[in-house]
Amino acid sequence: MRMYDIIENKRNGKELTEEEIRFFVNGYTEGSIPDYQASAFCMAVYFKGMTEKETVILTDAMAKSGDTVDLSMFGNLSADKHSTGGVGDKTSLIVAPIVASLGGKVTKMSGRGLGHTGGTVDKLESIPGYKTTLTSDEFISQIEKVGMAVIGQSGNLTPADKKLYALRDVTATVDSIPLITSSIMSKKIAAGSHNIVLDVKCGSGAFMKTPEDAEILAKEMVKIGKECGRNMAALITDMDRPLGSAVGNSLEVIEAVKILKGELDNDLKEVCVALATQMISLIYSVCENEAKEKVLDSLNSGKAFLKMKEWISAQGGNVDYIENTDIFPKTKYTFDVLANDTGYISYMDTEKIGITSVILGAGRASKEDEIDLAAGLEIFKKTGDRVEKGERISTFYTNREDSIPDAEKIYNSAVIISKNRPENRPLIFKKVK
Amino acid sequence: MRMYDIIENKRNGKELTEEEIRFFVNGYTEGSIPDYQASAFCMAVYFKGMTEKETVILTDAMAKSGDTVDLSMFGNLSADKHSTGGVGDKTSLIVAPIVASLGGKVTKMSGRGLGHTGGTVDKLESIPGYKTTLTSDEFISQIEKVGMAVIGQSGNLTPADKKLYALRDVTATVDSIPLITSSIMSKKIAAGSHNIVLDVKCGSGAFMKTPEDAEILAKEMVKIGKECGRNMAALITDMDRPLGSAVGNSLEVIEAVKILKGELDNDLKEVCVALATQMISLIYSVCENEAKEKVLDSLNSGKAFLKMKEWISAQGGNVDYIENTDIFPKTKYTFDVLANDTGYISYMDTEKIGITSVILGAGRASKEDEIDLAAGLEIFKKTGDRVEKGERISTFYTNREDSIPDAEKIYNSAVIISKNRPENRPLIFKKVK
Repeated sequence: MRMYDIIENKRNGKELTEEEIRFFVNGYTEGSIPDYQASAFCMAVYFKGMTEKETVILTDAMAKSGDTVDLSMFGNLSADKHSTGGVGDKTSLIVAPIVASLGGKVTKMSGRGLGHTGGTVDKLESIPGYKTTLTSDEFISQIEKVGMAVIGQSGNLTPADKKLYALRDVTATVDSIPLITSSIMSKKIAAGSHNIVLDVKCGSGAFMKTPEDAEILAKEMVKIGKECGRNMAALITDMDRPLGSAVGNSLEVIEAVKILKGELDNDLKEVCVALATQMISLIYSVCENEAKEKVLDSLNSGKAFLKMKEWISAQGGNVDYIENTDIFPKTKYTFDVLANDTGYISYMDTEKIGITSVILGAGRASKEDEIDLAAGLEIFKKTGDRVEKGERISTFYTNREDSIPDAEKIYNSAVIISKNRPENRPLIFKKVK
Repeated sequence: MRMYDIIENKRNGKELTEEEIRFFVNGYTEGSIPDYQASAFCMAVYFKGMTEKETVILTDAMAKSGDTVDLSMFGNLSADKHSTGGVGDKTSLIVAPIVASLGGKVTKMSGRGLGHTGGTVDKLESIPGYKTTLTSDEFISQIEKVGMAVIGQSGNLTPADKKLYALRDVTATVDSIPLITSSIMSKKIAAGSHNIVLDVKCGSGAFMKTPEDAEILAKEMVKIGKECGRNMAALITDMDRPLGSAVGNSLEVIEAVKILKGELDNDLKEVCVALATQMISLIYSVCENEAKEKVLDSLNSGKAFLKMKEWISAQGGNVDYIENTDIFPKTKYTFDVLANDTGYISYMDTEKIGITSVILGAGRASKEDEIDLAAGLEIFKKTGDRVEKGERISTFYTNREDSIPDAEKIYNSAVIISKNRPENRPLIFKKVK
């Protein structure tokens, strides 16, 4: 078998055989197939797509290209949640304790932030003492005892995807539904959970710009996950505005704590409840109404907040910061952004708002950058809100005074104020099961 | 400027700017753009094509990526001929002396054979003493004195094409009209001739299988050559049967000598006259009838044969072999292939006939293989000919006795004998100017 023929077959629109796909994944992982053949192949897939059968095999082959996590001891209780990435998206910090408080076994391996979106691991590191690395034994035993663990991606999980994603990222071949699907789903399959809920974002701050595109991706991922033997559900949620009001690492932890304490009731809470409901519904095979009731009860009774403290403590974090979020370190500088016009906020370019937080120090432009865990911004007015000229719409937190003018300029260019109230945009567009 | 954006622009079907194309060619040649980006780019070009403007710039950029030959001292007299490759194609050995005998300045840099097609340089090396390498000064001074020189591709001519072609060859991106065009034409432009005649082959032994595909390529190459300031013409000729009767290195030199001596009148001669006519017509801006008269006169008067001897001698070759081709070394074994049925030869798979000659020792399966200059085959019956069962249709010449059974099997599978006479297929399909 030759990689040349596999590229040519795909280029000519043929369905590849299982043998051909596994030959590619194994050969590319071990290095016998060079990057230049893999990139030509990815470009051919970009143009010719893949059938469902091909995508399932590609996903399975990538999932098996390295270590896999065995969660079979948890039966049908294991659950994982994946977001396609957004600005101000701290749902994992809220959803995981809710589901764990209700008996689910939540296992999350999260990434670090890059570009305009933040990473759960960075956010958790703002809590002094929190360990983002556990041994396999520690990981499993914490899930047994506490019902959940959130760690960084560790070990040799899906090396095929790591290598292929890095290549796609520099060859303009990221934007392909079967390749995105197999990349995300191979990681989820290798991570072992039986129940998987996807939060597919759409809008200016997301990879998928329209609900229609997000739905295509969501359907494909749900289909492939089911073919790989998992329980699947997906929500398509809005990323045409940041989720919640905080963007930045400790700022987002503080917002999550407020939700779990019952001190806040906003769009973030709504998305978290919806995601947790899907997870509970899958885990216990109950209808959504029943699941939602359990979720709201966990939140209102304080059980979810207790679970958060138990979890943070089990992973070495100082719970004092969760009890009293005022003790999180503060930045040297704060800066209020004022509305430059009177009217309604009609549009927020969420990607630009993510970039504003990076400029203030909260994120990374490249992998090597250090981040400032206290930096970021709070958003007081979002799409649809009425504002008066001179009214505070956001506050910046930073230790880099000289970043403020640039950050203000970008933030102002991201927030459009118009005379007319914009149409309401749904927060949750669709469920895909 | 980033290669990423250039790939993405082409992937999205945009016309690239001159700056972008030159950035790619220069960066790829010097090594700052890696193979994996170039191969993704070529696959995007495969799917999205290139406009005429883009192809002209790509051709020009590749032509200028290394050394170029200055033939301006010959004014409008310099002429080059390029064949897209075939089996038994020894036209250069005949056409060049004809044109040189009529005052043209014929400068040919030829390749070696690979796969099922032979190379002019290998054929010439079967003449003892013939030097396929000349210094630039020797090359120019021989053209001045003799009117022609045929050497191997030397120096640093079109390094961009060398590198890119090798990459396309292993990434299933050869088969793209703008990439084929820019590859061939960049070499022709760099080689400096003012008049360029292309022999675009079509059929089972050629890269282009149909006259229609060959015409598309021919038109594109003629257009691009003209845009680059050259006089251009192309013939589309048949490669659904080998050209002439000899396949193999010294065997083809012998056949060429016979044509120039006036001892043979066959399809090979017809194609050579047509090609030489186009070259003379371009060089002297005369009509084809007048050009053809000159060409036939050169052949019939023996001037072309004299010119061949002058040329071979100038390049160090032993002219005794041209005077008396019987002294060329013979192979140890000869083998007659007999018709296995009575009827008409209705089809010849020319690629398989080329492969037969490789098996007998006349060609290379891979670049490193040594070739046997005396090996090959003679073909006595071609498409349309009547054969009786048991009649000799071909003779093999080889020094590898054990290759004969395989060679016979492939040859027989390549030659189809049917009851009915096949329709006549033209030898020259079309002129493109």
